Amino acid sequence: MPARDPVPPPFGRLAEPQAAPATGETVTVLVETAGARVEHILSGQLALPLDYDQDHDEWVLVLAGRARLAVEGTEAVLGPGDWLLLPAHRPHRLLAVEPGTAWLAVHLPPGGEEPTA
Amino acid sequence: MPARDPVPPPFGRLAEPQAAPATGETVTVLVETAGARVEHILSGQLALPLDYDQDHDEWVLVLAGRARLAVEGTEAVLGPGDWLLLPAHRPHRLLAVEPGTAWLAVHLPPGGEEPTA
Repeated sequence: MPARDPVPPPFGRLAEPQAAPATGETVTVLVETAGARVEHILSGQLALPLDYDQDHDEWVLVLAGRARLAVEGTEAVLGPGDWLLLPAHRPHRLLAVEPGTAWLAVHLPPGGEEPTA
Repeated sequence: MPARDPVPPPFGRLAEPQAAPATGETVTVLVETAGARVEHILSGQLALPLDYDQDHDEWVLVLAGRARLAVEGTEAVLGPGDWLLLPAHRPHRLLAVEPGTAWLAVHLPPGGEEPTA
């Protein structure tokens, strides 16, 4: 019986923030399994505020740069090391972003507990 | 009927790598939902190699510092920005770590596809 070849684990290195596009954003999916997804996002200049309203919880971390968001009327400025949990069906708006801002986004599987009203 | 108070989204800032313990590690759970968990880990000096073998996929990213791991006989050195997917039931060993190494670990829910043999 042939020895089973070891399956090399997937691995990689995050692109540098300088690789961000001038405008818009680049999204790289790093891993996706069982309803969860990890993305690396590089943001350039924002032409207009961007509105989001997703059906699952999303956790975001700023790795570099700076961004301004509004979640239900509350504004927050996020810099390196700042993280935020965006629960499902909680509309939020990305108001402004410093070009070269790098994010990690973890899309969590649906089915978590709803916050009590 | 009273207006529903907006539920403030949970948020925070990662501790600086300098907050790592001299030996061992500090694990902070940042979010946990629907079988997925995001942790921030700060590592100090490793007295002995540490063996792991978990029942779910785990994705790790080095934010700062440096670490040496072995996965099925293959060694890898990870520095800032390097990430690795550690599939379920794939034994791995943390061989050495630079004190002040900061990690992000995403524990993915079980039930993802098995790698084909």
